Amino acid sequence: MEEWDEVEVPDNVKDIFVEMKNTAELMVDLAYSAALFKEKEMAEEVLKLEEYLDLLNYNLTVRAVLSARNIRDAERITSILQMARAIDDISNAAADLAKMVLEEKIHPLITEVILESEETIGKVVVSPESVLVGKTLDELDLSTNTGVWIIAIRRGKRWIFDPDEDTKIMPGDILIGRGTRTALDYLKEIARGNIKVMPNE
Amino acid sequence: MEEWDEVEVPDNVKDIFVEMKNTAELMVDLAYSAALFKEKEMAEEVLKLEEYLDLLNYNLTVRAVLSARNIRDAERITSILQMARAIDDISNAAADLAKMVLEEKIHPLITEVILESEETIGKVVVSPESVLVGKTLDELDLSTNTGVWIIAIRRGKRWIFDPDEDTKIMPGDILIGRGTRTALDYLKEIARGNIKVMPNE
Repeated sequence: MEEWDEVEVPDNVKDIFVEMKNTAELMVDLAYSAALFKEKEMAEEVLKLEEYLDLLNYNLTVRAVLSARNIRDAERITSILQMARAIDDISNAAADLAKMVLEEKIHPLITEVILESEETIGKVVVSPESVLVGKTLDELDLSTNTGVWIIAIRRGKRWIFDPDEDTKIMPGDILIGRGTRTALDYLKEIARGNIKVMPNE
Repeated sequence: MEEWDEVEVPDNVKDIFVEMKNTAELMVDLAYSAALFKEKEMAEEVLKLEEYLDLLNYNLTVRAVLSARNIRDAERITSILQMARAIDDISNAAADLAKMVLEEKIHPLITEVILESEETIGKVVVSPESVLVGKTLDELDLSTNTGVWIIAIRRGKRWIFDPDEDTKIMPGDILIGRGTRTALDYLKEIARGNIKVMPNE
């Protein structure tokens, strides 16, 4: 847990709670991506996020419990703690999957299942000719414009996990995204430079 | 469990497994929607899906175990069962949330957290003037074209949960979707008839 000692945790219950939900969802996406592409570094990231989520959960619990002044408060706060536990359970499931990746225990059927689900994971290489190049994720709003949610970016030898809105796409970037097959194919055409105009232009 | 006695379960391990993953993901979406809109009928659906998922998990386990011929097979199959358990854990978290909805234990903070997450849930009413009217979900491909994943449709007094590609949008339908705020706002404009052309036209 040491490395989280200096990590900033949001300082009110709501922000901690929102961060927990976002983190757990990122963990599930990263865990499936790690399983699909056999990416151990990505699986390690899931386990790091699990520790971060435990820290968030601890902070949420302390603050929530402190805020209870009477029985009625305490009952209401219990419902917050129950939802926090549900989020934590989801993150644990993601961590279990990540551990399987690290132990090289991913049966080929598992990757088939990820590929054939309604929402799947895809890898998209950005060509220098693509309209994506030089734009930030905020400008591109790929989630609205292509239906693909960007989970991670591989740039040269390093990973950018959970890229933020200011992250700029560079030529050669490998985008890891979640979406339907149609959405991922569409983003692929844009990334290859075959589609030159983004829907929002 | 009685009502599932005549439910069709896919008959090979991969299809059962894909169905489990899709079902668990639908359960999470429906559970958050039920919590946000305080929809007990939707929460009941999550609990029904949990029973269905248990049935799928049972069938997967039986078939997977039967297919093991030696130690090596058995070890590989264990990894399938581990992933199935992770999916089952996620579905249990969704069911726990659904139970809180049925017990009316949703603290206002929980709905705030759902609304402020990166991916949130929205409700969109379809006006008779909208280009959505009369088209199937397959034709519209809303997920690629607007970034919104349709979880459920409210039509008059009944719910259509997990609508399929042949489901046709009718005027007055209330769509429950998952996406970013931008994506949900964009779909709202299309549903109101303010945006007349779908991006794929």
